[in-house]
Amino acid sequence: MKKTLIAVLALVTTNAFAAEGMWMPQQIPQLADELKKMGLKIDPNRFADLTGDPMGAVISLGGCSASFVSPDGLVVTNHHCGFGALQFNSTPQRDLITNGFLAKTRDEELAAGPGSRIFVTTNIEDVTKRVVKALDRATKQLVEECEKPGGVRCRVASFFEGSQYLRTTQMEIRDVRLVYAPALGVGDFGGETDNWMWPRHTGDWSYLRAYVGKDGKPADYSKDNAPFHPTHILKVSGEGVNPGDLVIVAGYPGRTFRYRTSAEVANMQQYTYPRTIKYATDLNNILREMGKNNKAVEIANASRIKGNDNLLKNYTGTLGGFEKFGIVTQRQHRENDLAAYVKSHTDAQKYAGIVDQMSKLEQEALATQQRDAVLQWLFRSSPMLSQANTLYRLSLERPKADIDRNQGFQERDWPRIGEGIARSQKSLEPQSDRAGLRYFINESQKLPANQRIAAVDELIAKNGGVDKFLDQLYGNTKIADLALRKQMQTETTAQLMTHHDAMVDFAAALSPLLLENERKDKEFAGAMSRLRPVYMEALRASSGGRVYPDANGTLRVTFGKVVGYTPKDAVVYAPQTTVSGILQKNTGSGEFDAPKNELDAIRANKTAGYVDPQLGEVPVDFLSDVDTTGGNSGSPTLNAKGELCGLLFDGTYESLGSDFVVDPNITRSIHVDAVYMLWVMDAVDGAHNLLQEMGLPVRFAK
Amino acid sequence: MKKTLIAVLALVTTNAFAAEGMWMPQQIPQLADELKKMGLKIDPNRFADLTGDPMGAVISLGGCSASFVSPDGLVVTNHHCGFGALQFNSTPQRDLITNGFLAKTRDEELAAGPGSRIFVTTNIEDVTKRVVKALDRATKQLVEECEKPGGVRCRVASFFEGSQYLRTTQMEIRDVRLVYAPALGVGDFGGETDNWMWPRHTGDWSYLRAYVGKDGKPADYSKDNAPFHPTHILKVSGEGVNPGDLVIVAGYPGRTFRYRTSAEVANMQQYTYPRTIKYATDLNNILREMGKNNKAVEIANASRIKGNDNLLKNYTGTLGGFEKFGIVTQRQHRENDLAAYVKSHTDAQKYAGIVDQMSKLEQEALATQQRDAVLQWLFRSSPMLSQANTLYRLSLERPKADIDRNQGFQERDWPRIGEGIARSQKSLEPQSDRAGLRYFINESQKLPANQRIAAVDELIAKNGGVDKFLDQLYGNTKIADLALRKQMQTETTAQLMTHHDAMVDFAAALSPLLLENERKDKEFAGAMSRLRPVYMEALRASSGGRVYPDANGTLRVTFGKVVGYTPKDAVVYAPQTTVSGILQKNTGSGEFDAPKNELDAIRANKTAGYVDPQLGEVPVDFLSDVDTTGGNSGSPTLNAKGELCGLLFDGTYESLGSDFVVDPNITRSIHVDAVYMLWVMDAVDGAHNLLQEMGLPVRFAK
Repeated sequence: MKKTLIAVLALVTTNAFAAEGMWMPQQIPQLADELKKMGLKIDPNRFADLTGDPMGAVISLGGCSASFVSPDGLVVTNHHCGFGALQFNSTPQRDLITNGFLAKTRDEELAAGPGSRIFVTTNIEDVTKRVVKALDRATKQLVEECEKPGGVRCRVASFFEGSQYLRTTQMEIRDVRLVYAPALGVGDFGGETDNWMWPRHTGDWSYLRAYVGKDGKPADYSKDNAPFHPTHILKVSGEGVNPGDLVIVAGYPGRTFRYRTSAEVANMQQYTYPRTIKYATDLNNILREMGKNNKAVEIANASRIKGNDNLLKNYTGTLGGFEKFGIVTQRQHRENDLAAYVKSHTDAQKYAGIVDQMSKLEQEALATQQRDAVLQWLFRSSPMLSQANTLYRLSLERPKADIDRNQGFQERDWPRIGEGIARSQKSLEPQSDRAGLRYFINESQKLPANQRIAAVDELIAKNGGVDKFLDQLYGNTKIADLALRKQMQTETTAQLMTHHDAMVDFAAALSPLLLENERKDKEFAGAMSRLRPVYMEALRASSGGRVYPDANGTLRVTFGKVVGYTPKDAVVYAPQTTVSGILQKNTGSGEFDAPKNELDAIRANKTAGYVDPQLGEVPVDFLSDVDTTGGNSGSPTLNAKGELCGLLFDGTYESLGSDFVVDPNITRSIHVDAVYMLWVMDAVDGAHNLLQEMGLPVRFAK
Repeated sequence: MKKTLIAVLALVTTNAFAAEGMWMPQQIPQLADELKKMGLKIDPNRFADLTGDPMGAVISLGGCSASFVSPDGLVVTNHHCGFGALQFNSTPQRDLITNGFLAKTRDEELAAGPGSRIFVTTNIEDVTKRVVKALDRATKQLVEECEKPGGVRCRVASFFEGSQYLRTTQMEIRDVRLVYAPALGVGDFGGETDNWMWPRHTGDWSYLRAYVGKDGKPADYSKDNAPFHPTHILKVSGEGVNPGDLVIVAGYPGRTFRYRTSAEVANMQQYTYPRTIKYATDLNNILREMGKNNKAVEIANASRIKGNDNLLKNYTGTLGGFEKFGIVTQRQHRENDLAAYVKSHTDAQKYAGIVDQMSKLEQEALATQQRDAVLQWLFRSSPMLSQANTLYRLSLERPKADIDRNQGFQERDWPRIGEGIARSQKSLEPQSDRAGLRYFINESQKLPANQRIAAVDELIAKNGGVDKFLDQLYGNTKIADLALRKQMQTETTAQLMTHHDAMVDFAAALSPLLLENERKDKEFAGAMSRLRPVYMEALRASSGGRVYPDANGTLRVTFGKVVGYTPKDAVVYAPQTTVSGILQKNTGSGEFDAPKNELDAIRANKTAGYVDPQLGEVPVDFLSDVDTTGGNSGSPTLNAKGELCGLLFDGTYESLGSDFVVDPNITRSIHVDAVYMLWVMDAVDGAHNLLQEMGLPVRFAK
């Protein structure tokens, strides 16, 4: 029986090559040997060529990743990344969220909504020398220069905790249309119950299309625009994956904390995470209550609730991960090891005391964290206040020279602000807004004496109590009026104030504290930007090992293999699920309500051409040990031939905490298998037009 | 990777030899080849020799199984089988239930309580010919003859649905003492949450000792009694098991329904199971509420609540099994196949219409099932009414000639009735009794007009309502007085009635309906006993295969191998758990509260000599595909050498429904590993006296 046990272990444990690392594309050539040993069939150097194949096809949606899969700009990403477009186009009468959507022709494609963007990275330059001299101003100048030719979006991003600054150039495509999303019972099968969970049976994909002006350059939405013809597209593979196969994920991971100190992590564990969990839970309870028996309110709040739910499961699991993985202790060990290294190496004296210096700065920054949390949630709970704040702040920034304006309010940001104003309209719902804000106003009244929000205290006192203040606030605002907000977007501060709009006045009253906090944050960031690079250098010197930078929303490559894990004693998770699992989970209502035509297709074995020979069924999702985080959603998963074999869409619950530390035995990513996607498109949703466009066979044409 | 997948399948699927079958010991020699192929190292014929080794060591506790493990009558069984003895000896001041118990010397051993029995099967005879002539009377005569020499208990049991009747002779040992039980946090680790569940980490064992008179014959409890010296004892093996190993369970399975018709099963699915679930749930809620904040009431109700909880999980799971396994449909197929066989075989005409005849009889018997259920639960909910009923019935039966008395009220049963009266004292709690009875009295008021319980209706009308009736009932009864009940046990009906005890009067009022139901049941059983053997014969003829009889509480042998299963898509359950799983589950309170000294021993790796080389840890529980049911609890699990390698104590939740049908891919039994038992005895509980008595090494003597 020993053979059996060893084979089972092979199914769930990683090989000697750790899958940890969200590598910068230019680092991949250094890892060529490892990738070849893992079975890579294409030239590893290709991953460093951002304008080549396959990296040229990997794009960002801003917060999600995606890829081009047809010469006519067809884009595939996660269902939950296309969710905003579904919500934007849904009405109580035409519920695209529940039913899904398929444009059978180009004419039927729907504008994805204001602010929808596709970013194609075209260049990355090292600008470290220029940035470190004058952080804020240099960054803005670098961006300004880069964007001058037009049609591109540039960004200066910090790598290795400020050791290196790279400028990325992205083509910004502004006309994005919704092409296809499966029904909610496929795209979000399992809902919140299965979110972050394995075994998983979610078909988390949607298709968009990039449109450009007739000149081939990015343009605002227009009927006359034409599909964008990307230079590189990914070939979608119907071959499927097997346990042990190499998989590579290219995408835009958002943020990790692999190099934060034990003191920072301890504060997150003890304060930041528990507080956020409480606030998001309470807010979602309020929003859910408001949407009961009112479909319009339910749709208005749907996207916010979904976002909070996802945050909650993530934060709760991560909080468990802090404990389970002993993350603070691990960091302390790292810092102790570093201290020992410094002691024993005469040439390492320059690193002495670096952790203490960082910790001291952090302690100061956290002195008002209770107040700052409430302040932040006032805006998160009230989209109306958030809108008022954006408009007021814009009026403060506009009179300045562009280079002096705060990042996010420069001329280059104005169209985006305009789109945000339009997009927010779908989520403005005064009753829910007031109920949420009321909760956090009440929270502000519990703050300790040395952390009060004076503006809130004064308004409550002036109006004679919280509810009277809210009566006044919501009784005297027209901020939910889209036309008015559009007008306000161009007004000076003086003009804005003549409206005597109570919500704008409230935003103005909160403004001094926000500005003061921003000033402090910049001061803190400046001080830290002198310390963190020293710390990174010390870690690199002391470990002698390979180092990758923390995720920062830039294009990264991570690789690993298809592999399961053992979540607890005597339980083994195989790395692939199948359609029979959909039948097992389906209850016919709520979160487990697969569409009837899918259930029929499974039961009738309408699966020829999509059956995995080893599983004997159509595969659905698979696990791998690739290193991913939020922002990677929608990332193409490539096989050893560089073809798209799946879409990354989630991590496992046991992995939560991986933003801080990776455990090769536990940390797993979840992908939807391209075979499942193609099968649903063919046998269930009849998306034959898209299969043909991607050059794939149609097996179930009627 | 194919090799890996095949190896994983090997870990979770059974081999070609189906493990289904609770075989009569005398059938085992016919299965010799199969057992040898599975690795049996001892002569298969030994299992047919009830007075030989190892079967001579397998004993019944009445409702549980057990085995002798030392020459001095030491018995090992499940913790939950010894639970009654723990409850009997517990007080709020000395809580043996929670803390466990260990007699370090014989003197410290505790009487297990009234009615505790050990039955050693000494003979089995075929008495079919005598029985079928005059079922009830013949049975009683056969028992009387057999028991005449004294010291033995005889029983005539029906096999193959009345095709065969066997008389079993058992030595009845009446002085049973509690020797050792681990703490509740070991013996019931996981509590109701883990009951029926895998992965499992329960140490479900306890030790009793059999005592006999100085003449070596069974005797009532006496200080002067001596340990019984069994002819055969089981060698306890510390070698452990591995996946794929042959395991054999010998014990007394209670009841299965493998040969019931589709109509009978359909009624169970639609009516019997849902109704029982509702009633047990509601009664347990009432009992739990009563025990809140009152430790004495909590202890009084503990055993009943535990019993109901176990029943509930069983019934709920079985109800799911009806659906999942499509049991009714399977039975219909079997009946259709039989009908087709009858049609196509001229010599099978004698079986024509047999299923229809059985179904017709059943329909008639179920005409009053709602009333009969309420009637039954009046007694289940009220131990006081149940006691009154026993005493009243005894007074009705006593004047008859012994052979005419109803089974259960013959002279041979009187001592047992006396012990039941004494044992029930621990569970008599008038407040809980009234609350439970009130619920079912109210249920009786909802019965349809043609199924009323007249006696109840009259008493309610006479007293002016349910609560006034209950005031009268509990205000005018002394049935909770043990001395009075002992006196009543010898009284005539006329003497009984002179007490004017309201509870006895109520029992007397219900008696005519009970007697009428008994008469009908016997009529039904008689009619069925002419049909069922024909059906069994038809099945045997049409299937041509090997057939085992339904479980009926007699000694059976079942064999299979150590094997896991796949409970759902992408999840594999390995067949063994380890002590690290205890650390994973332990919360430090409630149902997951392992004793501190056990946790310390695990963390300190105080495990030398008990570590499974393949698992790298001390094993805890294991799975097998042996075919078991209620009553098998406590059964010794034997390895290929016939040594005790574990104790059967549960089935998996996914197996529920196996009383009706066995699915070789899903049906699994749960055993506590003897290695875990020995490790806890040695390293945690210091039960070194018992290890030495069983001839096993002590590794952690202080």
